[in-house]
Formats: sequence, structure tokens, C-alpha cells
Amino acid sequence: MERKTEELKAELQELVSKLLAYNQATGVMYYDAATIAPRGGAADRGNTLAVLSQVIYELQTGEATGVLLHALDERKAELDPITARQVSELLRDYDRTKKIPMEEYVAYQVLLNEADAVWHKAKVESDWPAFQPYMEKIVAFNRKLAAYLAPEKEPYDALLDQYERGLTMEKLDAFFSVLKEELVPLIRRIAAEGRQPEDVFAGKEFPVEQQRKLSDWLMEAIGIDREYCSIGETEHPFTTGWSKHDVRITTHYHLEEPLSSLYSVVHEGGHALYELHVADELQGTVLAGGAAMSIHECQSRFFENIIGRSRGFVHNLLPELQKLFPEQMAGITEEQLYRAANVAQPSLIRTEADELTYSLHVLLRYELEKQLIAGTLEVKDLPRAWNAKMKEYLGLDVPADRRGVLQDSHWSGGSIGYFPSYALGSAYGAQLLAKIRQSLDVDAVIASGDLAPIRAWLTERVWSKGSLYDPQDIFLQAAEEPFDPHYYTRYLVEKYSAVYGL
Amino acid sequence: MERKTEELKAELQELVSKLLAYNQATGVMYYDAATIAPRGGAADRGNTLAVLSQVIYELQTGEATGVLLHALDERKAELDPITARQVSELLRDYDRTKKIPMEEYVAYQVLLNEADAVWHKAKVESDWPAFQPYMEKIVAFNRKLAAYLAPEKEPYDALLDQYERGLTMEKLDAFFSVLKEELVPLIRRIAAEGRQPEDVFAGKEFPVEQQRKLSDWLMEAIGIDREYCSIGETEHPFTTGWSKHDVRITTHYHLEEPLSSLYSVVHEGGHALYELHVADELQGTVLAGGAAMSIHECQSRFFENIIGRSRGFVHNLLPELQKLFPEQMAGITEEQLYRAANVAQPSLIRTEADELTYSLHVLLRYELEKQLIAGTLEVKDLPRAWNAKMKEYLGLDVPADRRGVLQDSHWSGGSIGYFPSYALGSAYGAQLLAKIRQSLDVDAVIASGDLAPIRAWLTERVWSKGSLYDPQDIFLQAAEEPFDPHYYTRYLVEKYSAVYGL
Repeated sequence: MERKTEELKAELQELVSKLLAYNQATGVMYYDAATIAPRGGAADRGNTLAVLSQVIYELQTGEATGVLLHALDERKAELDPITARQVSELLRDYDRTKKIPMEEYVAYQVLLNEADAVWHKAKVESDWPAFQPYMEKIVAFNRKLAAYLAPEKEPYDALLDQYERGLTMEKLDAFFSVLKEELVPLIRRIAAEGRQPEDVFAGKEFPVEQQRKLSDWLMEAIGIDREYCSIGETEHPFTTGWSKHDVRITTHYHLEEPLSSLYSVVHEGGHALYELHVADELQGTVLAGGAAMSIHECQSRFFENIIGRSRGFVHNLLPELQKLFPEQMAGITEEQLYRAANVAQPSLIRTEADELTYSLHVLLRYELEKQLIAGTLEVKDLPRAWNAKMKEYLGLDVPADRRGVLQDSHWSGGSIGYFPSYALGSAYGAQLLAKIRQSLDVDAVIASGDLAPIRAWLTERVWSKGSLYDPQDIFLQAAEEPFDPHYYTRYLVEKYSAVYGL
Repeated sequence: MERKTEELKAELQELVSKLLAYNQATGVMYYDAATIAPRGGAADRGNTLAVLSQVIYELQTGEATGVLLHALDERKAELDPITARQVSELLRDYDRTKKIPMEEYVAYQVLLNEADAVWHKAKVESDWPAFQPYMEKIVAFNRKLAAYLAPEKEPYDALLDQYERGLTMEKLDAFFSVLKEELVPLIRRIAAEGRQPEDVFAGKEFPVEQQRKLSDWLMEAIGIDREYCSIGETEHPFTTGWSKHDVRITTHYHLEEPLSSLYSVVHEGGHALYELHVADELQGTVLAGGAAMSIHECQSRFFENIIGRSRGFVHNLLPELQKLFPEQMAGITEEQLYRAANVAQPSLIRTEADELTYSLHVLLRYELEKQLIAGTLEVKDLPRAWNAKMKEYLGLDVPADRRGVLQDSHWSGGSIGYFPSYALGSAYGAQLLAKIRQSLDVDAVIASGDLAPIRAWLTERVWSKGSLYDPQDIFLQAAEEPFDPHYYTRYLVEKYSAVYGL
């Protein structure tokens, strides 16, 4: 009996090795496609991805896989925690993926490869009609997917569950209503009474070559080991990785907006730090990635906002900016830079939105996705609906779809139900900050320029655990109390009341 | 019977699709590793490459593949030329690869992945001892490989045959002896009597950002469609590709030597043009790549030297250089730039060597490889042997292995027997030039700035054919007479006698 379990475990390890290999191969191809691949190669790449994703489907759902996983599941008591967790995760994938017919699964991967190339061009040219047919297919697939995965659930709940286990519209509606209730009055007050700082970067250019050097400094400043993490350039910043030894972040440089890439690098750097600090014993298993998108966004938004936009970080950042851009930064004070990094002002682009209005961008997407999946909004009407909500929540007119419905890469990447993770992650981060403050003088650590104590806290409580536990359990282990969105709203109200002297 | 052949052809197409998919996946991973992947990921990538290369091995040598290929081979008369050629090429791979035990084949792929990372670091640090154990394993494998592939042949002949079918030491010895006999006296005369031009770039810096713009101009100038070809940055320039829709070149920028990257881009651009112009009907087959390394190097060396270092090209290049580097290029005349691009002077680095001394760099490597494979030279003695030959042929002392035995990426990439292709390709190019001149005023075309007529000639005679014929047949179809190395020596003697006024 004992020997049999060892054999099964060896067989599991072989399956996992193959899955990780195919995931890396397809992942590198997607990364390559987003960074340097010539555009014209999309169709050929589609053929290759079809071949590889068919193998992945077969590895995940094949009969041998089912027999193996069920056999191991039956003797769970004998398994070490890492193996047991791998079995339950793979069994979950097995049950879920098996519900999707292989041809549809593979066709969807091919569609996404194509949609990504089309979206990229459509965004640059602000050409919604070019992307609309792809978005229609993506929404149609996701509606079918929801029915395959959990026919007993509301379709959008089935999709949310993919990114955050157990997340539902009911929970999100409650969460967003707290945010709306407590943040919208503050946003209105700032608009009415707050004095907006002057735009100290207006009319200046920040050469990309120098911005690249700034990225190097930022990665060093937050503690990324470049031996295991590289930086590329893409239309839309993202992070990807295949183990703690190979993580990639990307950014996008805007000549006239140095803070755009700056905070993208710190945001993606937060994602990277998480992956780079998963425990060694989880490497080579399916648990070596982050636990869920909300926990991931918690790390990235924590680094971007709580650390990156703090007074201490700005204090250390200013001399570096002055060194790299002596003319452009001449005469800019620390207070001016801090205010520039913490402007609260309705804006069009989510990734560049300030901390305070950010969650309204997420809310807008959440509400539109709900309607698309429920079938109460047609894809062709999406730009109009987007623009109407932008006016309603943020008071802004959208001048071009490039800066509206086409701005994000998530939908073209097939992710519907992902956006709420951003707001949830931000809220998780504020609650963790309160917890960290119980044992660390966070402001002093940031001001010291050496974030090691914060990284150590997060490594112990969150990062090292990879996907060994469910995301809500990881959050609970770290925060030591249930999630409460009021930590987030209090943090924002306190910070921005101070920034705007209200 | 007829239907049966159709079924077999469909099965062949499926096999080919899979092979191309795995080739692209592993190829993209190697490209990624050379360009942007973090160094620390090498070991994990090794696992992934092991999984994928095992599948490639099985696809190439599996029983089903053997049955299929032999069945198709038996009814060759019924097959269209493209299918027939695919069958014979795949059968050749089948026969050859099957002779290598799978474990050794896979272990070698993993070794190469590791060796590449080690070589990269060793080159930068000029640390031969770090690379020596890898080189020992690579040489040992190649000696075994030769015995597997063709036990009846001289081992080095078996290796040469991989890169150029039918090439032997006998042919190469004869070829190199012509070169030595006719070029060495000229090299000596230039050293004794020739007036070397002043180094117009000395002490100047050419910012990388501007050099990148120059690369864009160069690719445009030689007629590369960027929709299908991108450019990356690597330690050692190279070209790779998976179809006419996805080709990649790379370069390496040196701050003080603008001609280094400039001629790398034109060289790799020549490789790229070849792949980009293979006929449409060969796409999606195993014949969509270039015919052999000699034919490939013929294209790259043709663009780099015959076109790129011509008076007409220099005439068009100068204004662009002056635009991008106004201060550094101030006062430099066309004649000075032409002379700078055509200096004939012994130097240490092959990729930066002038046209005239270039083949001595290849000869050096050819002779060392012969000895390594014959077992008359041990790897540990390789740096000493390298340096002695460098002194003998080029009169130079090697100051550091970085600029000597560690300079090229071929050995760490597992290629032994590849280097002769460079000299052979250069010689092919000179003979093709004579042929092209029969129907085109080559100098006028180059001076016009529009190389389309030259590209059209090469497309028709060479590029479009991919690997549909053996390399020597493609050369013969293009040149319409047998290969004669005296075209090459005459071209060099005439050109450099004029440049140096001898």
C-alpha cells in the first residue's frame, strides 16, 4: 500500500512537470507576443498555441489524470500537505476543464491569441468596430463557460469564482456599496473645496532612455532581484512568471507622463515580489504561483499606493528623479512631488487613476460585465454604456474609445470577472497595513529606503505560502480578523482629507 | 489506393504541424533566453526544454512516423514535389535522429541550455575555466554524435554534413588553400605598403538610443517588412524565425563602435530577407526555412559586405548618420566613411573582421574544430591553441579570452562544423554577384537606394526555394556554373587593391 502511494506520487510529479513545462512554453509565447514578436506572426503562433493548448487540455482532463487524481484523493490522509493540496487543486481543474468540450477550449485559446493582436491595433487606432466582433465572441464564450462550469449558479458568479473562489455578486454589491457610500462624498468635497496642486510636469518631456534607468532604480528600491526578474515594454503593463526563478514585469513609457511608468513599475513590481518569494518547497509544484488575483492585486496595489505614494518613498525618489531629469525636475520640491503622486481627480484611465477614484473605475467595469453576462447589455452598445457610466461616476466625457472601452487588455485576454479583484485587493492591502503597523513602524521603514522588514512580514504572512491555501484563508492568517472594507475607506478618507486639507 | 495516399498526406500534414509547433515553442524559448529572460531561470527552462525536446524526438523518430514516412516514400511517384521533398527530408531526420539514444538527445538539449547561460557569463567575465567543462561535454557529445550519424566517415566530416550536405574536409582544405594562397600575400602587402585610414570614430560616443534608430533605418533601407520581422538585443547577434511571418534578428550595440551594430544589422538582415521571401506554398511545411547554412551565410555576407560596404550604400548611409549623430559625424566625408567601412586590418573579433581577413578567422576555427574532433587537441588546451593561431595567421596577441576563444556563441550552442559555412557563403556570394551583374547594374541599383531589383533576383533564384532543393543544387541553379572560389579571391583582390591603391 505504502509503495503504491509513492508510485502515485511519482506519477503525479511527472504530470505536474509536464503541465508546468507546457504552461511555461505557452506563457513565454504570450509574453513574447506582447513584447517583441512581429505582429504578422499572430496566425502562425495561433497554430502553435492550438497544438500546445490541446496537450494541456489532455494533461488536465485525460482519463489517466482522472484515475491518478482520484486514487490519490482517496488516500489523502497519507499525503503530505503540499501533495494533498496539489491533488485538490488539480482535481478542481480536472472537474472544471472537463466540462468544456476540447474543441471549444482550444478554439478559445486561438481566438484569444488573435483577439489580443486585434485589440492592440484597435486600441492604438481607437477603432472599436475592429474589436467588437472579437469581444462578441469572448462574451459569448464566457456565457457558455459559466453554464459549463456551474449551471446552478448565476452565470457571472461562476466567472467570478474563477479568479476568487467563493466570490459572488452579493458580496461584491455589498463591498462596492460601502465604497460608494464613504468615498463618493469625499470625491465630491475635493472637487468642490479642494485646491488641486499645479501640474509640475506639464509641458515637459522625460526621455524614455532615462525613464528606463528610473525603472532600474525602482526595482532596486523595492527589492527585486534582477537575476530572477526582467522588465519588458508592452502596450499595457503586466506581470507573468513561471517560478520564483523567472518572473517578468512590463511597463509602458509615456514621454510626457513620468509617473505613469513609474507607478506601473512599482505596481507590477509588487506582483513580482509575491512570485519571487514563494517558498522553495512549493517550486516545481502547481502551488508556486500566487493564491488568487485579489491577493495578487493586494501586493501590487500595496506597493504602488501604500508604499510608492507615501511621503517616505517620495522623499527617496526625488533625488533620483533630479539626477535622471535635472532640467525637468529643477525647483520641484518634495511637497510638490508628493502632491503630484497623490492627486485625487477624476480621470479616464484606470491604470493611471489615483487611489481615491480608482475603485469607481473598477465598479464601472464590474457593472458592465454583470450586464454583458446577464445578457442585458449587448456588446455593440458597450462603448455607449461605458461612456455613460464614466459621466455618471466620474463626471467625464470620453473623447475616444482608446481612452475608454478599449483601454484595458483584460477583455481581449479573455478575462471577465477579473476586475473586482483590483478593488478587493486594494481593500485587503489597507487592512494588512493596519496589521503591519502593530509590529512595524511602517513610515520609518519606508523612509529608511530599505524595505526589507516589510518584505519579511509579507513573505512570512503571505508570499511564501503561494497557493497552499485558499485566498480567504491566506488573508485571514495574515490579517488575523475577517475582511472589513472600512479599513480601506478609513485609510482613504484620512489620507486624502490630509492631502487636501479638508 | 489514391484515397490511401490522401490519407497518408493528411497524416503527414498533422505530423508536420506538430513538429513546427514544437520547433516554434522551443525556438521562442531560446530567443527569449537570449534576449530578455532573467538569467536565474535557466534551470527551470531546462526542465521545460527537456519535456518539449523529448516530444520532438518522439515525433521525429517514433514508430508511427517511420511507418508513415516509409509508406509515403514507397509511392513517391504519386506525390507532388513539395510533399515528396518533405518526405525525404523527414526521412533523413528520422534515420539520423533515431541513431541517437533519446536520453542522450534530451540531455544534450538541456546541457546546451545551461551551457549558453554559462558561456554568456564566462564571456562577459573572460572566465574560460567556467566554460571549459561545458565545452568538454559539448565536444565529447559531438564526437559521439559523429559516430552515431556516420560511423563510416571521418568524424568531422559527419559533423560538417549536418550544416552542408556532402561537405568534407577534403573539399574545405582545397577551398581554404586557395584562399590562403591568394589572400595572405595581399594582406601582407597592405600591412607593409598600404596606408591605413585614420580612425574617424576614435574617442567618440554613439548613444545606444540613436543607434537603435539607425537600426530602424537600416532595416528599411535593405527592404525588411517590420510587420514580419522584429529586432532584439543580445550578447551575440543572430537571426531566427519560424515562417515568413515571424523572423527575428538581434544586434549588440557598442557605444564607441557604431559600425559594429550597423553591419550586424545588415548581416542579420540578409538572413532575415531570405526567410521572409520563401515561397508561400512552402509555408507550413518543413521546407520553409533556408536550405543550408552556407546559402544562408551567402545572403547575410552578401548584404553585409557586397551591398553594405559598397560606395553606393555608404553614399546613402552618410546623411542618415549625420542626421542621427550630428556632432560625432561632423566633417566626415563619404570617402572617409567608405574607407572606415573597408579597412583591411587584422583584428581579434570575427564578427567585426573586415572582408579580407575574415576568412582567416574562419580558417582558425575550422582547424581547431578538426583537431578537437580528431582528438589531437584537448579542450583544456584550446585557449592556447587559439592564441597561437591568432598570432600565426593575423599576427595578433589575444589580451583576454573574452576577445579570443570565448567570443562566439556557436560552440556553447552546440554547433561544431558550422563555421566553414561562413567562408563558403562569402565565396558563394562573390560568384552570385558576378552572375547578377550579367543582368543588373548592381552599383546603380545600390546607389539608387531601392534594392528591389536585387531582392527580386535573389527571391527568384534563391530565396523563394526555401529547402525545396539541396543547397548545392540551389547554388547551381542560381549561378548556372559550378562553384569556383576564385570569384571570391578575385573580388577581394580587386576591391582591396583599389581601396589601398596598390
